[in-house]
Amino acid sequence: MDELPLDQVRTLLAVVDEGTFDAAAAALHVTPSAVSQRVKALEQRTGRVLLMRTKPVRPTESGEVVVRFARQLARLERDARAELGLAAEQGPVRIPIAVNADSLATWFLPALTRVPQDPPICFELHREDESHTTALLREGQVMAAVTSSPDPVAGCTVRRLGLARYRAAASPEFAAVHFTGSLAEDLREAPTVVFDRRDALQDAFVRSLTGGRSGAGRIRHLVPTSDGFRDAVAFGLGWGMVPEPQAEPLLRSGRLVELAPARPMDVPLYWQQWKLDSPALSTVAEVVATAAAEALLTDRGSGAPENA
Amino acid sequence: MDELPLDQVRTLLAVVDEGTFDAAAAALHVTPSAVSQRVKALEQRTGRVLLMRTKPVRPTESGEVVVRFARQLARLERDARAELGLAAEQGPVRIPIAVNADSLATWFLPALTRVPQDPPICFELHREDESHTTALLREGQVMAAVTSSPDPVAGCTVRRLGLARYRAAASPEFAAVHFTGSLAEDLREAPTVVFDRRDALQDAFVRSLTGGRSGAGRIRHLVPTSDGFRDAVAFGLGWGMVPEPQAEPLLRSGRLVELAPARPMDVPLYWQQWKLDSPALSTVAEVVATAAAEALLTDRGSGAPENA
Repeated sequence: MDELPLDQVRTLLAVVDEGTFDAAAAALHVTPSAVSQRVKALEQRTGRVLLMRTKPVRPTESGEVVVRFARQLARLERDARAELGLAAEQGPVRIPIAVNADSLATWFLPALTRVPQDPPICFELHREDESHTTALLREGQVMAAVTSSPDPVAGCTVRRLGLARYRAAASPEFAAVHFTGSLAEDLREAPTVVFDRRDALQDAFVRSLTGGRSGAGRIRHLVPTSDGFRDAVAFGLGWGMVPEPQAEPLLRSGRLVELAPARPMDVPLYWQQWKLDSPALSTVAEVVATAAAEALLTDRGSGAPENA
Repeated sequence: MDELPLDQVRTLLAVVDEGTFDAAAAALHVTPSAVSQRVKALEQRTGRVLLMRTKPVRPTESGEVVVRFARQLARLERDARAELGLAAEQGPVRIPIAVNADSLATWFLPALTRVPQDPPICFELHREDESHTTALLREGQVMAAVTSSPDPVAGCTVRRLGLARYRAAASPEFAAVHFTGSLAEDLREAPTVVFDRRDALQDAFVRSLTGGRSGAGRIRHLVPTSDGFRDAVAFGLGWGMVPEPQAEPLLRSGRLVELAPARPMDVPLYWQQWKLDSPALSTVAEVVATAAAEALLTDRGSGAPENA
């Protein structure tokens, strides 16, 4: 990766960010043919195809590596300029972070309010989406992520934040209709709320009750926002695994009932971030780790199974 | 589009849904080379490239048309089988819908609870994302969408649902620090919470106060979930345009203050759906339109500007 011509690297980044060669040319104030030549030269030098010529263009896996390099380069340049007192005209520091929906709906935002805002830091939050987050980190579109994936993305460090606890819950009316006999049997028939197609938590819970024989039922409503998920359960569309901080007030007020109080499910969360020495990112990482230590469970506790 | 061999059309759909030729072959119980031959034959017959051979494969714009056709075909077949009493083994009806985040966080879920669940209908909600929703509709991955885009997607009908009202709000502490002089001037400097990069509502509000001279300030926090957005404003990360149903309880309890009570912003919402006669979809469309008429504003009211 050494001796990559930096004008070519910056050009590749502009093409990815702008989406087309023409738009990149306009942004860089050069001709489209100059953009095209620089990208081709970089592909020859690296011996790899770096861009898929789709609309918009997208980096290949090799291209993502170069794009991340370009973003890290820009970040370092910017930090250096800030230290030299040359940064005034560049605007505030931007920290893009991917966050899983349940963390964003519970402990993460209060944590961010603890980050000192002098000089100001702009938080650019992205909705985490496991496969997508890996690409965002690999490409350098986010500098860090709160994710349930422990697999380190290339160029990133991983740190365990703690366990998020989920409780199986339903509205009292829903429970009265659907849970009249054996819970394990009833759960195989009852409508279920799941976050999205990848959300395996409800199935894991039912499997834990049935000794692995069966997952949740076939009537599944997909509600891919954290508060929407909790509301769908409270409105009686189905039962679901609700994050403890969101379930607590509704359990207390009687809008939710817990199906198996002795069987919470715990999901480990991780902080992944660029291997890059950025003072603002370090500050955010420390604040997030401290807030996570307060808000999440730190051990496996009370026999609850861990689910990735 | 007539005389498209249906086995080839179904094969294309399987490749798009499974992501690779090998996975499609496994799902269809044929060899990968049979899958490849069918897709090539379909491309020759239509005279178009239908798939981008990326990982995972993605349909081209022409491919999206064939994929939607394949999904509509599957839906019609399924409705016919249900009417013939042959559907028992196929499981419940699935209605995939894209919904913009603010509707999902406010009026949309209570509406869904009014849809009769006999026979059961599975709601598969997707987070709306303007550009993405167009592709989801065009490809047929969702049958309908609640969206702020009035532009009909090919193959879809559009119906106006009403106006969603937003109010400029901040925490009292934030307002005391940042709004001490002229609101229009102060808003150009104060930190702003925006939903994502495409969210132009805060800029439109500031422009409406400054006679178009200026948008919101440079310190922008991006918080791309509806409840997260409201929480970020209530926690004092910045000011922002909060949906009225979410703002109301916090304004009443004093956790938020309104910056310009006489100047709400109204955003029109639309229902886009497949031109396809599906009984379940028609039921959902009616329930959604009725709930929207109750929850949203039906005219431009009180001189509030309309913002797309």
